[in-house]
Parts: sequence; C-alpha cells; structure tokens
Amino acid sequence: MKRTKAGSISHNVIRRMPRYLRRLDELSESGIERISSKELGEQLGLTPSQIRQDFSCFGEFGQQGYGYNVRALREQIAGILGMDRGFQAILIGVGNIGHALMDNFCFSDWGFHLAAAFDIKPNLIGREFQDVKIYAMEELSEYIHSHRVDVAVLAVPKEAAIPVTQLLTENGIDAIWNFTNVELTGPGSPTIVENIHFSDSLLTLSYFVAERRDENEAKAAKAEK
Amino acid sequence: MKRTKAGSISHNVIRRMPRYLRRLDELSESGIERISSKELGEQLGLTPSQIRQDFSCFGEFGQQGYGYNVRALREQIAGILGMDRGFQAILIGVGNIGHALMDNFCFSDWGFHLAAAFDIKPNLIGREFQDVKIYAMEELSEYIHSHRVDVAVLAVPKEAAIPVTQLLTENGIDAIWNFTNVELTGPGSPTIVENIHFSDSLLTLSYFVAERRDENEAKAAKAEK
Repeated sequence: MKRTKAGSISHNVIRRMPRYLRRLDELSESGIERISSKELGEQLGLTPSQIRQDFSCFGEFGQQGYGYNVRALREQIAGILGMDRGFQAILIGVGNIGHALMDNFCFSDWGFHLAAAFDIKPNLIGREFQDVKIYAMEELSEYIHSHRVDVAVLAVPKEAAIPVTQLLTENGIDAIWNFTNVELTGPGSPTIVENIHFSDSLLTLSYFVAERRDENEAKAAKAEK
Repeated sequence: MKRTKAGSISHNVIRRMPRYLRRLDELSESGIERISSKELGEQLGLTPSQIRQDFSCFGEFGQQGYGYNVRALREQIAGILGMDRGFQAILIGVGNIGHALMDNFCFSDWGFHLAAAFDIKPNLIGREFQDVKIYAMEELSEYIHSHRVDVAVLAVPKEAAIPVTQLLTENGIDAIWNFTNVELTGPGSPTIVENIHFSDSLLTLSYFVAERRDENEAKAAKAEK
C-alpha cells in the first residue's frame, strides 16, 4: 500500500485504520487467513463498500471473490500507520496515568519504544519502571538533543500542560500525545497533537444514555395510554 | 435546545458537543460573556457555518449580529449531553487506570456520580478512595439490583472484559465506558459502548508523524537536487 499525497485522506478514514488493524490481529490470532469485505464489515459495523473505499485510498488490494489475506492486509495497514518506523516516545509526568501507561500499555505492540520518562518529584527521579528510567525535568532539553524523540506523551497536571508543551516545542518536538484534557494548540500550529479527552468520551456516552432513557420513557408513556 | 428524534443526529455532531462545552467553560472562566460563531470557530478550527449547522440540529439559538451568550449556550449543551440527569456510575477494576479515574477524573464535573467500585483483590475490598468504596465482585449483582446504576466503567484486565460485560448485561446494565481495548459488542447489540482505545489514538498520531517525516524527506530530497 502506498502513502498518498499528504493531507489528502480524510481523518475519518485514518481513524478507522487502527480499528481494522485490531480486528485483523484478532482474526490472525483465531487462525483466520482470509476475509471478505462483507464479513469484515459485519464484524465492525461498516458496509463492505465503505471498507473497500477506505482501503482504495492507499492503493489496490484484495482480490474479487477471494477477499483479503488477513496477514498481508495487516502488514500493509501497519506500514500506513508508521508502525515500522521505530518511533521513539518519551513520557512527561509519572502520576497515575503515567504509571498506568508505563505498566500496562504495551508501546512496542504499536511500533513505539518508550525510551524515557520525566517528572519533578524527587522520589521518582532515577527510578525505573518496566526498564524505563525516570529523569528530572531539568534533564529534558539535554535528553531531546542527544536522543531521537518522535513523540512526547503528555501526562502532567492540567496547570503544567501549556508550559511543558512550550518547552517541548522549543526543543523541536513536533508531536504530542495529550492526556491533560487541555487544548494545547490553536489552528495553524505546526505541532501534531492527538488528544485523549476522557471527558469528551464520557459525555458522548452520556448523550446516548440520555437518548435511550428518553426513548424508554416515551415508550412507557405510549403504553399507558 | 430540544433533543430531536433519537438517532437522527450524526455521530460527528454529537462528538463535537463535548468540545464546545469545554471551550465554553474556558471562555466563562476567562470572564467572556458572548462569542460569535466566527470567533468560536477560529478557536476550535471549525468554520462558522459548521458551528451554526451543528447547533441548528438542536433548535435555534444565538442572535444574528449578537452571537451566543456563553453561559446560556453552555447550559443548553450540558442539557443535550445529559449532564443534568444525575447519572450514577460504577467502576469495575481498580488497577492503574481505575485508580487514575478514582483519584484524578472528576466525574461530578461532567454530571456523573461515581458511586462504587468493584475488584477481586482481597487487599482492595472494603477500602475507600475519594469517598468511593471498593466492593467484592461477588457483591456486584446485588449492588446493581439495590441501587441506580446508569453506566459501568470497565477497567478490568483484557481477559476479564467479555465475561464481566456479560455479567453486567445480565444484570440490566446497558451502558459501558470501556477502557479494556477489547471490542465488547457486535453490531446490533442493545448495549451502548463508548470505547477509550489508547492504541487507536496513538496509531492515529503515528500516522501523522509518519506523514510529516515523509514530507520533510521529500522536501530535503528536492532541496538537494
């Protein structure tokens, strides 16, 4: 699969790629070697034509009447997502979320290497978790200039989000995985930011629960009549 | 703002609502009382017409030439999102992520009350964090039948995700906030699931970083010629 002209592929298509990857991994684990766009669509709640259209953004593959080779498709999607690039990540902030990421999130499963962590708490500095060493924030600039760093994982308290982002940007970091719930950049910023907003997700769930409750109430009211 | 017919509003519009809410909260904190769709759009990287279109899904508000009243708009969006319904949540699994949610995530800011937590580890059962008591998993069914529970927050290890979901569903829970990275339901399931897939988010970031690196390389190659 080829990467096409930058920026030409819709965000919605890009956001579905990791879902395809996860599903293909699960299929592979179950020993399934090929799958049709119809079956894959049913498993993911998408139409077969949407799936074919998504993949066609990156070139031709799959064979009419044969379907997709699960393992080959998985490798192609992994390549599109940059999983074969050896991206190096650093973690800023070793609180609960930082700890959870260090302990439970397997960066290497997704092509990343978590190379170092940084914090301001003296009792954390110099310690190691899962082979990742925690450095002092004062060491950040020097670390960045002497190591390859592709992505900074931002898990600092809310009030530190903006100053730490400025520090990272000044040191040439152009990609941030943001757990702080703070909007880091305005439009037009050269920094690539991917946000994990827990609250946005909970409120989306909340919307659908409220909708469900309203439906049920309306049904109940109708039944009473 | 009125809630319109269930299912008639696109997921993309619904997913933008929490972002509007966050921004309006920030504007309110800065003492700003009204804002035009143009200004709001600039701050969020959206066009004014998209913003007007989004809000028009829920009825008319804002005045031509006056803009939106920040506080009133915030309250209307909060209502749409169900933040005024007193939703009750329970947490299943008090590992790193569960702890992070109990300690740092302010459910009440988003209209939720985290009422109880459940785990299988004997050293956790009976303890309290931030006024939330941890119960044994064996007490889950009884708890659900004697308390209002609107949402279960699923933060158990991967291998427990499906059995715990079955247990929740059997006990009438129809909404799950899913931190397990496991797809919980097939299409057509009556359970409302909102996933936090850390890996999907990281891989989306990875895609854009790879794209950026390719652009830079192409530029460098061009400059060398």
